[in-house]
Amino acid sequence: MFCAGHEAETPPELLAWRDGPGTPWRVRVVPNKFPALRIEGDLERRGHGLYDVMNGIGAHEVIVESPRHDDTLASLPVAAVEDVVRAWRERIVDLKRDQRFRAIVIFKSHGAAAGAAIGHAHSQLLATPTPPQRLSDELHHARAYHDYRERCLFCDMVNQESEEQTRVVVESDHTIAFAPFAARFPFEVWVLPRRHMAAFENAGAVEQRDVARVLHGVLRKLHATLADPAYNLVLHTAPFAEVESPYFHWHLEITPRLPLAAPMFQNGSGFHLNPVPPEDAARFLREAPE
Amino acid sequence: MFCAGHEAETPPELLAWRDGPGTPWRVRVVPNKFPALRIEGDLERRGHGLYDVMNGIGAHEVIVESPRHDDTLASLPVAAVEDVVRAWRERIVDLKRDQRFRAIVIFKSHGAAAGAAIGHAHSQLLATPTPPQRLSDELHHARAYHDYRERCLFCDMVNQESEEQTRVVVESDHTIAFAPFAARFPFEVWVLPRRHMAAFENAGAVEQRDVARVLHGVLRKLHATLADPAYNLVLHTAPFAEVESPYFHWHLEITPRLPLAAPMFQNGSGFHLNPVPPEDAARFLREAPE
Repeated sequence: MFCAGHEAETPPELLAWRDGPGTPWRVRVVPNKFPALRIEGDLERRGHGLYDVMNGIGAHEVIVESPRHDDTLASLPVAAVEDVVRAWRERIVDLKRDQRFRAIVIFKSHGAAAGAAIGHAHSQLLATPTPPQRLSDELHHARAYHDYRERCLFCDMVNQESEEQTRVVVESDHTIAFAPFAARFPFEVWVLPRRHMAAFENAGAVEQRDVARVLHGVLRKLHATLADPAYNLVLHTAPFAEVESPYFHWHLEITPRLPLAAPMFQNGSGFHLNPVPPEDAARFLREAPE
Repeated sequence: MFCAGHEAETPPELLAWRDGPGTPWRVRVVPNKFPALRIEGDLERRGHGLYDVMNGIGAHEVIVESPRHDDTLASLPVAAVEDVVRAWRERIVDLKRDQRFRAIVIFKSHGAAAGAAIGHAHSQLLATPTPPQRLSDELHHARAYHDYRERCLFCDMVNQESEEQTRVVVESDHTIAFAPFAARFPFEVWVLPRRHMAAFENAGAVEQRDVARVLHGVLRKLHATLADPAYNLVLHTAPFAEVESPYFHWHLEITPRLPLAAPMFQNGSGFHLNPVPPEDAARFLREAPE
């Protein structure tokens, strides 16, 4: 359905980049055919006793990352990842103009164990009328840290990881990828800009190319080390009201879904049991080919 | 390994209830043979730059819910569920005396889709030196509600559900079970005491029997409606420092793991997509036989 030549099977495209007239597209964004949220209508925020209700309004889009069925972000050249990163940003900038939305989350599932229902390489974007709970909780903790330290928690992490080097996976001028100190999953990797930046869409052209290059490196290293693992990728970026926040810092969280992760702890207790120390995961990944 | 006659295959028992000398046990608690946290040692709380480190100290116990391999909480008589609820409470009361622990979480995985690695009916207990993140976040939200309303959020939910009736699954004198208003999963059910009570261990003998009876009813109705579904059950109870908290209220969260739940939303984005309205789920369950 997402392959070149099957464009009529998707809803009308929102974005497509081509090398020139008559050439095939490289990356293409379409509305999700089975959206979790619908773009038409009013929010109608209301109360129901102590509960809050609103209509299921939002944008649910699919970023098709290649015109070919068998490509993956790891197997594609870095230029394709640059296209994807630029497409994410362009869609955010467009959707921010809609006054009904408060936040955007972009996520990607690769492989059946990560919940991917479709094999063709793609990521998804949700623009929502309320920030997702997980992002709100993360903001709460980042704000508490900033209240106490008057510094950004994520900037402090970037500095410490940069100095220690033991958990670093890939580094470049503007971007750092590392295994987080309290990694929840084996081979979990976070990708952050070095510069303080709450909102992903505030990344400049050079920074976007740089993050694409680092992301590509991480995915290739994961592919080489773990034989094309299933993984989830989630972009955490500031809600629209906080794009200049001094305490939030956008980042990508990449969590491989490996069978060795203790299944009894995927149970809603909120505990994670990770048998692979992040220092070991980072060393394996550093030594893997890009 | 958990069957009667195989007692020597587990670590020495912490608790076992028998009808009399020479009779087999009905419920039995043993240390987990492969514990996530170890009971011996000191916490050694320390910093590592901006991060916090402590040793993996804690208790990890298994509550064996029946001496027979093929029983389930739904198939056992209600007296067996009463034993399990009492055993949970007795282990909490015992472990609270250990000054190193801050909180206890009890959880149960039934069925492979819920992450159960062992078929024999059992639940697990973790006593931890720090409250789990999910419980801390829940406390934070409950506190914010209480700061604003000067009422317990969960008491308000109990009252509203009791009045509306549309999401109620089972009710009794001291306990209510309902499908939560913003259910994250199809057929999700919460069980709460009607009386404000932050800590599970503060439930009296009558309340314990009552919650066992309601829990048994819910599990039998889930079994009848969904053909023995996989599910997770988590007891949310106040951390030890907050056992008299005016804003927290212990409860059980039961989340069936059904194949119809959209897999692409189990991806860490923090969004849940639930195709079954809680009012429909509650009506199905109310009408199902106990």
